[in-house]
Amino acid sequence: MTAPLRIVALSGGVGGARFMRGLLAWGAATGTPLDVTVIANTGDDMRLHGLQVCPDLDTLMYTLGGAIHEGQGWGREDERFTVAEELRPYGVGWEWFTLGDRDLATHLARTSLLATGLSLSEATARLAARWDLPVTLVPMSDQPVETHVELASGETVHFEEWWVRTRAAAPARRFVQVGVDDAAPAPGALAAIAAADLVLLPPSNPVVSVGTILGVPGLADALRACAAPLVGVSPIISGAAVRGMAEACLAAVGVAATAADVALDYRARHGLLDGWLVDDADAGSLPRLAAAGIAAEARPLWMTDAEATAAIAGAAVELGRLLSSPR
Amino acid sequence: MTAPLRIVALSGGVGGARFMRGLLAWGAATGTPLDVTVIANTGDDMRLHGLQVCPDLDTLMYTLGGAIHEGQGWGREDERFTVAEELRPYGVGWEWFTLGDRDLATHLARTSLLATGLSLSEATARLAARWDLPVTLVPMSDQPVETHVELASGETVHFEEWWVRTRAAAPARRFVQVGVDDAAPAPGALAAIAAADLVLLPPSNPVVSVGTILGVPGLADALRACAAPLVGVSPIISGAAVRGMAEACLAAVGVAATAADVALDYRARHGLLDGWLVDDADAGSLPRLAAAGIAAEARPLWMTDAEATAAIAGAAVELGRLLSSPR
Repeated sequence: MTAPLRIVALSGGVGGARFMRGLLAWGAATGTPLDVTVIANTGDDMRLHGLQVCPDLDTLMYTLGGAIHEGQGWGREDERFTVAEELRPYGVGWEWFTLGDRDLATHLARTSLLATGLSLSEATARLAARWDLPVTLVPMSDQPVETHVELASGETVHFEEWWVRTRAAAPARRFVQVGVDDAAPAPGALAAIAAADLVLLPPSNPVVSVGTILGVPGLADALRACAAPLVGVSPIISGAAVRGMAEACLAAVGVAATAADVALDYRARHGLLDGWLVDDADAGSLPRLAAAGIAAEARPLWMTDAEATAAIAGAAVELGRLLSSPR
Repeated sequence: MTAPLRIVALSGGVGGARFMRGLLAWGAATGTPLDVTVIANTGDDMRLHGLQVCPDLDTLMYTLGGAIHEGQGWGREDERFTVAEELRPYGVGWEWFTLGDRDLATHLARTSLLATGLSLSEATARLAARWDLPVTLVPMSDQPVETHVELASGETVHFEEWWVRTRAAAPARRFVQVGVDDAAPAPGALAAIAAADLVLLPPSNPVVSVGTILGVPGLADALRACAAPLVGVSPIISGAAVRGMAEACLAAVGVAATAADVALDYRARHGLLDGWLVDDADAGSLPRLAAAGIAAEARPLWMTDAEATAAIAGAAVELGRLLSSPR
């Protein structure tokens, strides 16, 4: 039996979760044994009504556990809203944040586990056990890091408030990772990176998802130190985000919203990135990427269905294999 | 228009809540304007999955707000259990504690309000506003007090665990009010007592409901200092608790489970109690009560329906009026 390919991915929510599902489907379809660790962004985490809510961990868990609401990409399928309907007449809370009953149970369970003294990594493993996940899911850090957005108006709001309530309409001046200076990579994240054959960047938001993970002190160092190639999938196609409002985030950090500029920024900002997949529509940027020493390929990148998504993930793995073979 | 009769009641959960509803019904039926403040026991409160749960405040609020589950006497009518069903597979929490979806919204709202810096009194008023309560509902204290039970086995458990999970089956050695030394009466409680025309003890548990309220430093002093008579309704009929398992609590504090002994213990322990209603079945104890200077009357005390309950409450008010008229 072949030793499984040890893959580490740095992922945000919806886009990353769908990509990971595609990767597993590709492994199953091609008979490639995979040992996958997903390091999830926890910068979107928040305390809501006293509960610890981790949007990206939950989206990954529900998606890979087969319980996601497919239509919206986040939250639970067959969701109910009795609690939310009862909260409204009390006039408290964030009306703009959807809190489904099934989803709420996850937040309650996590908060309970954390209250008993478990780390976020340990609590995540306990929650994941219910779903029998085909990956190891770890938070980027066991310490709380909260992404806040400093608006052009001077006001500072929690990332989720900016993202979900205002749909990122108010221009962001900068992002502040509250708590990041005191954060360390989760132990499981470091161990997985050290043992990895390949590191993948799914098409997650390069600023507030992957960028936040890479901002945890020591994590980018560990990636630079590991021998495995790092291959990313562009979240930008033809100058627009595949999903979400990544352009607004890129604008705030002064990066043009193109497939090439995102890749070059990973290099410039973090000294990372060996391979990069761009969409066929962005094939014109291949020479620029090659000139920067990034092995780039153009291919269809729209994750339109399970098959297309699996093919994208497979292409990323193949590019990684190419980069890790003796040159 | 007659000035309303200012009544203060010290109440636990189910029995006290039903009595209070009877009092209001009696006031409406007899055209007696009432200004009622209910001081609720908060010793049963607990932190559950990170949420602040106040069983007696909630039972009073739902009962007087017309939203109680009549059959069980606590929790919400038309309750749903999606969250509880989702919590179970995570294997966390207290399986024996029923957490309904509608009820959960109250705990979430309270926890949110407390997290914004409101006192428990203020949060209680905010929650009560939704229900348009016909009484002023105040917690006994804004400081957390938790009743723990030291079992004969030496083990110590939260009161709710002993009461709800084991149905008080394990003999209790003593009750410990964790935090009571640092607690003070809620400001609204002291103000209501100072202005009261009459203080009532509904047929609540004399040890862990009324006894806990009276244990808040300064609260019994305020009652002794106020001019209003204090009239109680026996929670014991023919040597057994009207509801619940008060005998187990009385045994732990060395008080015989009789209507007279409970009254005499209020006198001995707290220097309180002017009038006392016992059931007709306990009429034989009237001489003993009279000898102790307690104005006692025997009458039907089973709160079998709304009418019977209103009659009991009315009898308590009438006894109080008798005691406060010039002698």
